[in-house]
Amino acid sequence: MDLKSMIRTIPDFPKDGILFRDITTVLQNPEGLQMAIDALYEKLKGEEFDCIIGPESRGFIFGVPLAYKMKKGFIPVRKAGKLPYKTKQKTYNLEYGTATIEIHADAIQLGQKVVVVDDLLATGGTSKAIIELIEEMGGEVVKLVYLIELDSLKGKEQLGNHSIESIIQY
Amino acid sequence: MDLKSMIRTIPDFPKDGILFRDITTVLQNPEGLQMAIDALYEKLKGEEFDCIIGPESRGFIFGVPLAYKMKKGFIPVRKAGKLPYKTKQKTYNLEYGTATIEIHADAIQLGQKVVVVDDLLATGGTSKAIIELIEEMGGEVVKLVYLIELDSLKGKEQLGNHSIESIIQY
Repeated sequence: MDLKSMIRTIPDFPKDGILFRDITTVLQNPEGLQMAIDALYEKLKGEEFDCIIGPESRGFIFGVPLAYKMKKGFIPVRKAGKLPYKTKQKTYNLEYGTATIEIHADAIQLGQKVVVVDDLLATGGTSKAIIELIEEMGGEVVKLVYLIELDSLKGKEQLGNHSIESIIQY
Repeated sequence: MDLKSMIRTIPDFPKDGILFRDITTVLQNPEGLQMAIDALYEKLKGEEFDCIIGPESRGFIFGVPLAYKMKKGFIPVRKAGKLPYKTKQKTYNLEYGTATIEIHADAIQLGQKVVVVDDLLATGGTSKAIIELIEEMGGEVVKLVYLIELDSLKGKEQLGNHSIESIIQY
């Protein structure tokens, strides 16, 4: 069974007209979880970087196992109010409204090479905000990788000249 | 450096009088992340089980790498309204108020052996609700493991006769 066929598509979630790509059917399948992490790993191996950043909460699902496997640090980006220490914040538009994300103000050191991992590249709003936060803190985004990319939403166009790869496209 | 000394303690978060144990300083340290996952793995190796359940969102941080490492499936428990398919729901008291959690209604098969992983055992409210959900669906909770346990809150007393282990105690 290939990875794409393990994804469950749910119409009209979270609202009418949206086809939601449900990754929980991949995760709960032991083989599916191996395949998903291994496929993302293939996109990163050989890349030189210091840490992985993943946004709450599905970015945690793929970012942490990759950081562990590759012996890197993991830095969470969270919704406003969740991180306990001093933060830097960014408000942006996302597919279904607006959101504010935060990162700990001391999480990234000047010149650090950062990889961004998330489950889904849709309109690119979250990723664009994360790139801006990283660059304002003096970090360098060396690559962004996604399990799923929704081609029709043209998220890549929001993300400048960065290196972007995904495993499954719709 | 030991794992406990990598945890940052933040007073008065999320409200006055709470000493918040911040694990982001463990995660962003490549050695810390290895040590945390490896220590939890030591508590699970040799255990016979089918899948790992972790609650949103810090349960994802530790649960998914362990599921990947041990070639098991991972089943997310999420806050109400986040899971796209049919769910079973449970409302419960937690340390700082009340919450409702959900699990996909088809996530657990009758007789499946389940391990619960989370970052923190505080009052035990979340874990108790997760155990109830698993058992109502016909699953068997074989073990619960936590990175941190707050002994003074006596969470273990909420969780009946289940096998419970933690790496760091306060």
